[in-house]
Amino acid sequence: MAGNILGELFKVVSFGESHGPALGCVIDGCPAGLELSVEDIARELRRRRPAQGGASTTRSEADEPEILSGVFEGKTLGTPIAILVRNTDSHSADYDNLRNVYRPGHADFCWDAKYGIRDHRGGGRSSGRETLCRVAAGAVAHKLLTVYGIQIKAWTSALAGIDMPRPDSPDFDFDEIEQNPLRIPGRAAAETALKVIETLRTEGDSVGGIVSCLAQGVTPGLGEPVFGKLDARLAGAMLSLGAVKGVEFGAGFAAARLKGSENNDTPANKTNNAGGILGGISSGQDIIFNVAFKPTPSIAQPQKAFSKTGSEAVDCMRGVHTPSLQGGVVDLVISGRHDVCIAPRAVPVVEAMTALILADMVLMQRSARL
Amino acid sequence: MAGNILGELFKVVSFGESHGPALGCVIDGCPAGLELSVEDIARELRRRRPAQGGASTTRSEADEPEILSGVFEGKTLGTPIAILVRNTDSHSADYDNLRNVYRPGHADFCWDAKYGIRDHRGGGRSSGRETLCRVAAGAVAHKLLTVYGIQIKAWTSALAGIDMPRPDSPDFDFDEIEQNPLRIPGRAAAETALKVIETLRTEGDSVGGIVSCLAQGVTPGLGEPVFGKLDARLAGAMLSLGAVKGVEFGAGFAAARLKGSENNDTPANKTNNAGGILGGISSGQDIIFNVAFKPTPSIAQPQKAFSKTGSEAVDCMRGVHTPSLQGGVVDLVISGRHDVCIAPRAVPVVEAMTALILADMVLMQRSARL
Amino acid sequence: MAGNILGELFKVVSFGESHGPALGCVIDGCPAGLELSVEDIARELRRRRPAQGGASTTRSEADEPEILSGVFEGKTLGTPIAILVRNTDSHSADYDNLRNVYRPGHADFCWDAKYGIRDHRGGGRSSGRETLCRVAAGAVAHKLLTVYGIQIKAWTSALAGIDMPRPDSPDFDFDEIEQNPLRIPGRAAAETALKVIETLRTEGDSVGGIVSCLAQGVTPGLGEPVFGKLDARLAGAMLSLGAVKGVEFGAGFAAARLKGSENNDTPANKTNNAGGILGGISSGQDIIFNVAFKPTPSIAQPQKAFSKTGSEAVDCMRGVHTPSLQGGVVDLVISGRHDVCIAPRAVPVVEAMTALILADMVLMQRSARL
Amino acid sequence: MAGNILGELFKVVSFGESHGPALGCVIDGCPAGLELSVEDIARELRRRRPAQGGASTTRSEADEPEILSGVFEGKTLGTPIAILVRNTDSHSADYDNLRNVYRPGHADFCWDAKYGIRDHRGGGRSSGRETLCRVAAGAVAHKLLTVYGIQIKAWTSALAGIDMPRPDSPDFDFDEIEQNPLRIPGRAAAETALKVIETLRTEGDSVGGIVSCLAQGVTPGLGEPVFGKLDARLAGAMLSLGAVKGVEFGAGFAAARLKGSENNDTPANKTNNAGGILGGISSGQDIIFNVAFKPTPSIAQPQKAFSKTGSEAVDCMRGVHTPSLQGGVVDLVISGRHDVCIAPRAVPVVEAMTALILADMVLMQRSARL
Repeated sequence: MAGNILGELFKVVSFGESHGPALGCVIDGCPAGLELSVEDIARELRRRRPAQGGASTTRSEADEPEILSGVFEGKTLGTPIAILVRNTDSHSADYDNLRNVYRPGHADFCWDAKYGIRDHRGGGRSSGRETLCRVAAGAVAHKLLTVYGIQIKAWTSALAGIDMPRPDSPDFDFDEIEQNPLRIPGRAAAETALKVIETLRTEGDSVGGIVSCLAQGVTPGLGEPVFGKLDARLAGAMLSLGAVKGVEFGAGFAAARLKGSENNDTPANKTNNAGGILGGISSGQDIIFNVAFKPTPSIAQPQKAFSKTGSEAVDCMRGVHTPSLQGGVVDLVISGRHDVCIAPRAVPVVEAMTALILADMVLMQRSARL
Repeated sequence: MAGNILGELFKVVSFGESHGPALGCVIDGCPAGLELSVEDIARELRRRRPAQGGASTTRSEADEPEILSGVFEGKTLGTPIAILVRNTDSHSADYDNLRNVYRPGHADFCWDAKYGIRDHRGGGRSSGRETLCRVAAGAVAHKLLTVYGIQIKAWTSALAGIDMPRPDSPDFDFDEIEQNPLRIPGRAAAETALKVIETLRTEGDSVGGIVSCLAQGVTPGLGEPVFGKLDARLAGAMLSLGAVKGVEFGAGFAAARLKGSENNDTPANKTNNAGGILGGISSGQDIIFNVAFKPTPSIAQPQKAFSKTGSEAVDCMRGVHTPSLQGGVVDLVISGRHDVCIAPRAVPVVEAMTALILADMVLMQRSARL
Repeated sequence: MAGNILGELFKVVSFGESHGPALGCVIDGCPAGLELSVEDIARELRRRRPAQGGASTTRSEADEPEILSGVFEGKTLGTPIAILVRNTDSHSADYDNLRNVYRPGHADFCWDAKYGIRDHRGGGRSSGRETLCRVAAGAVAHKLLTVYGIQIKAWTSALAGIDMPRPDSPDFDFDEIEQNPLRIPGRAAAETALKVIETLRTEGDSVGGIVSCLAQGVTPGLGEPVFGKLDARLAGAMLSLGAVKGVEFGAGFAAARLKGSENNDTPANKTNNAGGILGGISSGQDIIFNVAFKPTPSIAQPQKAFSKTGSEAVDCMRGVHTPSLQGGVVDLVISGRHDVCIAPRAVPVVEAMTALILADMVLMQRSARL
Repeated sequence: MAGNILGELFKVVSFGESHGPALGCVIDGCPAGLELSVEDIARELRRRRPAQGGASTTRSEADEPEILSGVFEGKTLGTPIAILVRNTDSHSADYDNLRNVYRPGHADFCWDAKYGIRDHRGGGRSSGRETLCRVAAGAVAHKLLTVYGIQIKAWTSALAGIDMPRPDSPDFDFDEIEQNPLRIPGRAAAETALKVIETLRTEGDSVGGIVSCLAQGVTPGLGEPVFGKLDARLAGAMLSLGAVKGVEFGAGFAAARLKGSENNDTPANKTNNAGGILGGISSGQDIIFNVAFKPTPSIAQPQKAFSKTGSEAVDCMRGVHTPSLQGGVVDLVISGRHDVCIAPRAVPVVEAMTALILADMVLMQRSARL
């Protein structure tokens, strides 16, 4: 309700601030009898950690998960599965100068406007670190989906405006994705992109990217019309990631330029313009969608920013379009450790969110028929 | 849960099949004391009806709403508001030949795969006619938002690959939107587009389009982190419309090509790349997003289609990529009344869905602070 | 959320005021493929109607249901089932004198305090007539439970302090329940009770009673620990009936006086003190519980009542314990048609609520295990 | 959904097994800006601990809570509040002999029937120790209610069939409740009851009791008709406690024996037979209800019990009424530490559950009116 619970039957509760004592999740509704170990979760959390030499922050987070409940002698009990990760490498002092400043492109002002109080350290709960909770929960969902024969794979499909090899290209190499720090499905493309990233890093700038996600083995019939459509649920899950600005399924925005005779998937062509979903229900074809990530808002270059000056803060922010308003504007230089491009590191997060939605949907489908 | 209920506090229940006795909605959670008349709802339903001479079907639907409950002496009671619209102009016989055929680009096969039973007449519940329920409920949401000073306006921003005037263009004319049947914000552009539509109609084809939506006067602080983000909720609402294939907020997919120094909205520039939402919470700037509609799947041109042949149906459909599978393939010609482009007629539907989400969010915000 | 939706998977939405245009319900989540006819619903609604010569009101309600959606060619589609019943026999003028009076024992004052507006005609939405929506929905649930071999049977087990035959008594006669207007499981007891009812009717008074409910054939394992326990859900469902003041399972309040060695059901005794539920989960034994109904608050005898006098109303009511407060007190005589005892007529309502909860639980159980 | 989440706006998630690593809760929806300290929670947890010399187990649990998230500089952030309590004093070996035995009066069999797997140590998640999660969450709810001027007080009102002083009795002493280990509101009554308890302890037996609960200062208007009535929600909350077998409001079951002229609360009498709730909405009078607790099922006396013998277990249990079924019956002696009467220790748990429901209701009420 207040936004920290996802799902209908496979429910995930996320908690924790970036620089608080801990983050974690509780899963309520995982069926009993599923094999689950701490290592299943730790493995996914390691994939989320910053890579060496890539586009990511250099923050070193051990992120050791602990299963607090719901698992007994290696199997799920059907009771809530609580997973805890302690925060250990929090450099809270890095953020002291941000207590009263609203960083451009960040949620700082909006959180103050909403709650009237905010943990300014590392973005508090609006930090990308919160995705840790999702990846931990997603690891459990992945295990459940394995039983159903469903596999999910995501990769960086564009970065800084450079398109990477597509699945139907001979240069596309699935095995390469986890071999390079940018999670690009092709070695040559990855090497080119790494140079772009390094240039941006030296310039103190960041850049956006696109993550594509493929789900295979999805049985036809998943998705709940009309408001719980599979693509509606996936779209909501993707936009629940802070840096995401768009999502498209199958032909996506390109479909808006096509004729019906071109866009319809029929027995006479080999297309999957629908992206595996028709009327909000899986068709059995591959589910494919793209997720657009904006550039990391924290950049090393100096920026103008609004600062909090008592009760005027809200007026101040709303005045973005009012050039005459200068009172609360300060010069800001953001230090600390930040990813040049969020997309590569978001790859396991996109997979996790997809897994969470599909896990929910396979359970929902158990009630669709007599 | 089973997908026909939307919202947390301002809850909407949608019911009805395209060719059943009636469609309608129940709103549970509308605050007491709001002025509401049948005409408030009828007005929005008329906007949803097919326009004369435009891109739309020629089905003539009176769509007279009746308020069954929840309103007393012109004001809402705080109890459920049930709204009913009878189906009167159902040409069910038009669909007899579709009982065992899966129309390309439609949900027919997926519904069979899910439920094992399906009302094939006019798409049953997967029909675009279901959006009537949303528009009726949205009319109530609009009334509530008026109290908060929130205004929502959508238009056709692209059609058949042709971009229409943008809000920052001198050709953009708000008042023109409801003056032309394509809901294009500029007369010249509308006339050009009408010719494209007519050509497509004679060719028996259809085409996609993009609807843009603007919400103004939205107070900062709306949206529930982390899974109930405002953009996550809006994205889910848009993808819950059957023909939608993508959604993007603010700079959207273009943000994936930008640098952080370009994309950040700061006091030093006049941008709204965030589209009025940061960290999933409204910032007070205009909320702006684009919704991509695929071409109408029902086209007059002959197409190949899969037909239902007993238990093989599912294998059949999953074999879209298996050219050797020919058994269940038939030649299909779709008659009946269909829109050439869905986007113009979807404009009030996009507005309604936006209103429903914002109405929910303004009520949620009442609990955010002590 | 706002209280008019019940259930998790088998969801029921209730709408309608006593003297508005119509009442009805929408069921979202009934599995596809269930045989369902209008007569299935009409039959249960007739059971809810006032009996001739019994304890009930003489209001003559046809209560003809119409299925608006969700059923196609005699089977459920898996889509929302909307059921409508028009109000036809509303004597609204009977209630004109109650517009500004708070009837003792009624919800009148509380609704005003909550919403600031109220449909005073026949109690509006707080009327017992709302249970019609529950019985209509319950009829669908009964059909679903039949597939699972679950049978539910309720009866009047006490009335005016007189205990009726218990199931383990030789005087208990299941077949007699629907043969007498008080739904008492024994002819002699029924005849005695009818005389008590007639005396009370001539005195212009009413009286309370107890309904007992038995569910047989319930498979072990239903109920969702810890907050969704089967008895918790049933208790909530029973107390959601306006006149109910208590509920007890198995030995119930008597268990509070027993020793553990007496109360435990073991292989060595034949008891069912648990009432078929242990730890909130069905055990496979008969589920048995009692529901206490208060006397009908509408009585023909003259009473003192508070009347609404502008903004002082709330203070006025809160001052029930302040004898000096006399300003808003009026003499009230309630005319109209009212049951002497609600319990007999509530029998099918208790069954319906039980069916709704069990239907939800059998669907929930489909997700409990891998 | 799967039963471990309570509430609509003030949501509580409970997790943890009795002998697992930890128990705890997550609260999603507590408004921002509420003062909250670890000591607020620790204080309530100490009240839940077994008392010295009373009716309780001698298990020594430190139960030190840790706040993991949601609180910053002494105030709630509006984000999820996660609270953790480690299990330290788990004598798991005490339970080895219970792995395949279904203790009479316990949930053991039902959990196996539901999930096919069970943590048998200390009852796993069906243990009374789970109430710790509720008391921790309830402590936060109590803080929120203080802002609204609402106070909740419960006590042991009957034990072993002995009625304790009632609030309208001169012997009733509020201040005495927390002064004696049985939480009885009168010293003389407490001393008598203690002797009964000691006798039962030496006999290796247990006994039931009743807890009464009073909520004062509740503003009129709380409760959501029709399914979310205040008494419906409270009843569900009370029956969600494992040992509770019944609940009644105001006059309760006694109302079923009264006439309407006796039971109606009017300006002319001083009664509160409604228990402060009419039509499911608070009236402003004191809310009062009674909760019946069965005897502790774990008793030291030898008992017959069913044991698990492979797939026959379910048939075995269902055959409680089949004396010929002897195969799975064993002699059982339960060791370990158990309360003679649960009621006194349940007093703070009843208060906590009441606080959780009322906290939810005060937030819900914020959306009732324009």
